[in-house]
Amino acid sequence: MTQPFRDIAAIRAAAASLPDADITAVASARARDGELTKPAGALARLEECVFHLAGWQHRAMPRLEAIRIAIFAGNHGVTARGVSAYPADVTVQMVANFERGGAAINQLARLHGATMSVAALDLDRPTRDFTISAAMDEAECLAAVNAGAAAVPAQCDLLIPGEMGIGNTTAAAALAAALFGGNVASWVGPGTGVSGDALSNKISVVDAALKFHGETLGDPLEALCRVGGRELAALFGAVLMARLQSVPVLLDGFVVGAAAGVLARLNPAGLDHCLAGHVSAEPGHRQLLAKLQKAALLDLGMRLGEGAGAAVAIGLLKAAVACHAGMATFAEASVSQRN
Amino acid sequence: MTQPFRDIAAIRAAAASLPDADITAVASARARDGELTKPAGALARLEECVFHLAGWQHRAMPRLEAIRIAIFAGNHGVTARGVSAYPADVTVQMVANFERGGAAINQLARLHGATMSVAALDLDRPTRDFTISAAMDEAECLAAVNAGAAAVPAQCDLLIPGEMGIGNTTAAAALAAALFGGNVASWVGPGTGVSGDALSNKISVVDAALKFHGETLGDPLEALCRVGGRELAALFGAVLMARLQSVPVLLDGFVVGAAAGVLARLNPAGLDHCLAGHVSAEPGHRQLLAKLQKAALLDLGMRLGEGAGAAVAIGLLKAAVACHAGMATFAEASVSQRN
Repeated sequence: MTQPFRDIAAIRAAAASLPDADITAVASARARDGELTKPAGALARLEECVFHLAGWQHRAMPRLEAIRIAIFAGNHGVTARGVSAYPADVTVQMVANFERGGAAINQLARLHGATMSVAALDLDRPTRDFTISAAMDEAECLAAVNAGAAAVPAQCDLLIPGEMGIGNTTAAAALAAALFGGNVASWVGPGTGVSGDALSNKISVVDAALKFHGETLGDPLEALCRVGGRELAALFGAVLMARLQSVPVLLDGFVVGAAAGVLARLNPAGLDHCLAGHVSAEPGHRQLLAKLQKAALLDLGMRLGEGAGAAVAIGLLKAAVACHAGMATFAEASVSQRN
Repeated sequence: MTQPFRDIAAIRAAAASLPDADITAVASARARDGELTKPAGALARLEECVFHLAGWQHRAMPRLEAIRIAIFAGNHGVTARGVSAYPADVTVQMVANFERGGAAINQLARLHGATMSVAALDLDRPTRDFTISAAMDEAECLAAVNAGAAAVPAQCDLLIPGEMGIGNTTAAAALAAALFGGNVASWVGPGTGVSGDALSNKISVVDAALKFHGETLGDPLEALCRVGGRELAALFGAVLMARLQSVPVLLDGFVVGAAAGVLARLNPAGLDHCLAGHVSAEPGHRQLLAKLQKAALLDLGMRLGEGAGAAVAIGLLKAAVACHAGMATFAEASVSQRN
């Protein structure tokens, strides 16, 4: 496998100089939209989705034929601190479930005709417990970022990065707190289902990590190495590489959002190619989306991970594209325009 | 065509004695859901949609193969009062657009494999201006309710009633105000796009209608005849007949909601078989959903009518059913349950 990024400096350089959307394609899509047999703006966010896809696909008539769901799985040393409701074994078990087609994301991929890739990132070698050490060293972090970047197909109409990793909402909370500050507890939620004392413990663990790493977390990539995890680094790498390849991204929930947040902190326009597929029930996600200035397409109370929330939102993008491509214009349909 | 309801008394009798959901099917669906490889409740509203479909389809494993979008079009005498941004001719022009496959709803039906029916209800005979007369007499209203009821297929997994009718957000506002009271202006919105003086005029028109008909509007069916319209009566008839035939319904926006509101006022459990597909940008719709105690699945700012908002939400129901039917159980996938 080629390594998309030679070193951390190469990642920094790429993130500092990102390509823009194709404004000519957006203008063409807007012009066609204005001619379609509906009151102006009546499809609202569906229209905005079309313009987004047009701009980032560099196509006046966007399409959603090649959709890739790229799942990354990682294990976390911090699970030793009792932060999850499920045993760490579930990560590898769920990867097997993905590979056999039995998980929620498999059903959603099939429904929408999306292809799936699953990258199990050194599951037998969990990251180190980040309350007492960096989760990853620079080489480990770079390898994971490269694994994410390598998962973006050269030709792709839409990328949905997803994840699995027992303990990863703890890492995501620590990373989000490092990137965006604010009250630590506001970033920590039930994940797969902890509450009461276990939730208090999870908050303490994140708090301890932030104190242990201190000022070093001011650098987004350093924060990713120190309190992230392999799947978070891979998610970041996938979102970055999608941008470099002009592939629009549909973001899933809290863990994906925290990883993508690294790019937002490296470059204020870093996530301009991303739509927020849904807002998770994990409470930190709503706050995270506000920091990222993204409005979610769906708010269904989902909190599964796997890219599942974003995968449900594929249906909205397909609806948007189908209307844009298939509707008649006022002239074609001989429908009167407004008074 | 057989007339499903002989007279208004038969409608009243049917609405007073409605069939219930199949609680055994719901219990079976809930039991299976608890075994699927995900944290309990992680699919949230998608799970609730599955239970809803199971109960109203009377199937432990619900399906979405036969989906019918039933569109009703009507013309409104009240358009003479200048309530719409578009000329009344657009109703018949858009019916032709539906029949040729050029409207938004056609693209959404095709995307989701739904079949469509279009009933143009006496378009050359608009209802009377309801500021000075009843919009329909009892026979006209009955015929329209029957047209709606007749549009529900005998076998159908999901019904989406939709509408087209220049002037019909004015009728829907008057009907909603008659059914649910409150400030008249709060029910009146831009529709296809009126604002400023034209919106003030629309409010005055609805206010005049409510004053003209007065106490007679206390009866929901009388309100439907007097300030509704043919497509609103048909929508009511379709929602009622769906309930009688155990067909779950996915409600669209403000006009459909106002028509369905007639059944809610005739029977407090009358809309238990209905999910709210989306909340429209038409401001009265949010208030209407609160009165109906329905939480919308989507909130995308759409305000098109045609059943389009609900049709976009088909994708969510398909996602829900796909996950429920296709996911592996913890036992099948050898995934550990929670600690």
